[in-house]
Amino acid sequence: MIGDKKETLLPTGACATRAVILAGGQGSRFWPISRHKRPKQFFSISDSGESLIKATAARLEPLVGAENIVVVTNIVHRPLVEEHVPEARILCEPFGRNTAASIGLAALFLRRENPHTVMITLPADHAVSDASVLCKTLDRAATLAKDGDKLVTIGIEPTSPNTGYGYIRCGKELGDRAFMVSRFYEKPSFDRAQQYVASGEYLWNSGMFAWRVDAILKAIADHMPALMDALTKIDATIGTKKEQPTIGEVFEKLESISIDFGVLEHAKNCAVVRAEPFGWSDVGSWDQWAQHFKPDQDGNLTRGDAIVVDSKGCVVHSEHRLIAVVGAENLIVIDSGDAVLVCPRENVQEVRRIVDELKRRGRTDLT
Amino acid sequence: MIGDKKETLLPTGACATRAVILAGGQGSRFWPISRHKRPKQFFSISDSGESLIKATAARLEPLVGAENIVVVTNIVHRPLVEEHVPEARILCEPFGRNTAASIGLAALFLRRENPHTVMITLPADHAVSDASVLCKTLDRAATLAKDGDKLVTIGIEPTSPNTGYGYIRCGKELGDRAFMVSRFYEKPSFDRAQQYVASGEYLWNSGMFAWRVDAILKAIADHMPALMDALTKIDATIGTKKEQPTIGEVFEKLESISIDFGVLEHAKNCAVVRAEPFGWSDVGSWDQWAQHFKPDQDGNLTRGDAIVVDSKGCVVHSEHRLIAVVGAENLIVIDSGDAVLVCPRENVQEVRRIVDELKRRGRTDLT
Repeated sequence: MIGDKKETLLPTGACATRAVILAGGQGSRFWPISRHKRPKQFFSISDSGESLIKATAARLEPLVGAENIVVVTNIVHRPLVEEHVPEARILCEPFGRNTAASIGLAALFLRRENPHTVMITLPADHAVSDASVLCKTLDRAATLAKDGDKLVTIGIEPTSPNTGYGYIRCGKELGDRAFMVSRFYEKPSFDRAQQYVASGEYLWNSGMFAWRVDAILKAIADHMPALMDALTKIDATIGTKKEQPTIGEVFEKLESISIDFGVLEHAKNCAVVRAEPFGWSDVGSWDQWAQHFKPDQDGNLTRGDAIVVDSKGCVVHSEHRLIAVVGAENLIVIDSGDAVLVCPRENVQEVRRIVDELKRRGRTDLT
Repeated sequence: MIGDKKETLLPTGACATRAVILAGGQGSRFWPISRHKRPKQFFSISDSGESLIKATAARLEPLVGAENIVVVTNIVHRPLVEEHVPEARILCEPFGRNTAASIGLAALFLRRENPHTVMITLPADHAVSDASVLCKTLDRAATLAKDGDKLVTIGIEPTSPNTGYGYIRCGKELGDRAFMVSRFYEKPSFDRAQQYVASGEYLWNSGMFAWRVDAILKAIADHMPALMDALTKIDATIGTKKEQPTIGEVFEKLESISIDFGVLEHAKNCAVVRAEPFGWSDVGSWDQWAQHFKPDQDGNLTRGDAIVVDSKGCVVHSEHRLIAVVGAENLIVIDSGDAVLVCPRENVQEVRRIVDELKRRGRTDLT
């Protein structure tokens, strides 16, 4: 198994592969545990206590080598990244400006080493249960990307009409589980998601990609010229005293746009690798988090000091006091010590609205 | 207004009236705020901060005089009663054995003064918004009771098919808003409660009574001979060194039975006074507690540090940390500092099951 061998599968050198871990998220759907000072990627979803970012880096090590892992993060989280992934190179953003900016910045730095480098890009905060199948899939994507003519996405076979994911419609088959992308779809309605899943032609957009550095920068230049201008300004100062101030000035003015929305949905050269199942979850909500643990016979999951009476499907996590739930169904209750969240499972996507409301009230102690 | 005059309405002497406040409850439906060390009757439901027991005593003062108020309480709560109702005479029970035992004990002591004393009996933990109407009703009941041939209950005109109350069916009319009791009914199903309310013949059983001391003791002797035996044993020791030990021995063995179930449902001489509305509530649950405050336009009530987003009909009380509710309907969330309760409003009667479960787990720190 790849995960045991800890060796690099892809050749380094002329067509080296680098893994870029995007760790700039705020994890506001995981309030009250996730806070701006310590967002979701730095906490664990397993009983091992290993953080999501550490687990992500560990999975990539056998594929690219620890020295070829780059983490893009907010400057305030640099110490946390150093603690959790001490071997990685770290690129810091002064402001979070979504994935297009993070990916552009990483590509800029990697281009100086080699514009033909294949850059595997993936979020820091996903869960994967079979690392070797993931690596096989990423390897396949990197191989498809290395000629530089394709932007390759990783598609996941949908197991439910999940409305929390974007969908990718497969087009022309390229062989070896790869297809050209016919079209990207943003998070759909439930009805539409059902149609997508029933058709068999759609995959979940995992947010994992592989492309050559020159290919993604060309696509950014084509579809997000303002971002390209900003990156060019930064490029001129790299290695000088002006580098950090320039990144600061430039990022502040950038729009917050995802790579999917800003580039991939417009590009004509996107491909998708249909992943063999590797037990993927974007751990996008407390509900998905709960699915990583085994509930009791009534479907309740309790962690910490919790009592659930005459209830079904409830998730209760308590860090500092007793939480008692009685006569309830499908509720999520999360205690972080200084705050308690109560939310029906079906509305977990709305948790970030609490963070918005706290900001509006100036309660930055709790965001 | 009676409440302003602070004078005694009923004559003292041969047919004196005494008010007996039953303050032995545990208030377990008000967990986590109500605890065995400080149950519900000692906390406030109003912004004034006046406890329920103090408010109860204050309402009775103009009717019987402060010196004629007797409080029956658990011995562990004696200091709390002394603090909240310093003028009252206090009778202590070593164990809580429900209202039949408490009333029997109070009647025993009052009989030594005068067996013809009319004893108004009422719980310590009810809410009343119009004290003068209450007093008028109690006065009417006391007058009806003073011949000693009737056990008089106070009935409340039902305003909804509440399943949390017992019901009284009115029989033969006695005049001046009084009737003989046709029958007592325990807490009914919702369907049955609807029928009761629709018929117009039923009243809520308020748990407030008036009877002569000799009449209630005769009824106890008739319908609860074991309790009468126990009371007789105590009576023989009153004023001696053996009084407290005897009460202890005797109470430990008593069954826990309400006066309604043990006596009134069997007695043939029960009457009921149909009260003019005095804004009564038995404050029997968190849901009823919430009805004493004005909710916002979405029907949410927040007290303390609470945020409610995209929710309706929720009640959130926080004493020591932020509680945030999102996307929920009709939930009750109560934080006491060391514990948090989460319960749908419709299931508030089940809160006591948490206390049972905590006892089962030996978590007496939290009961």
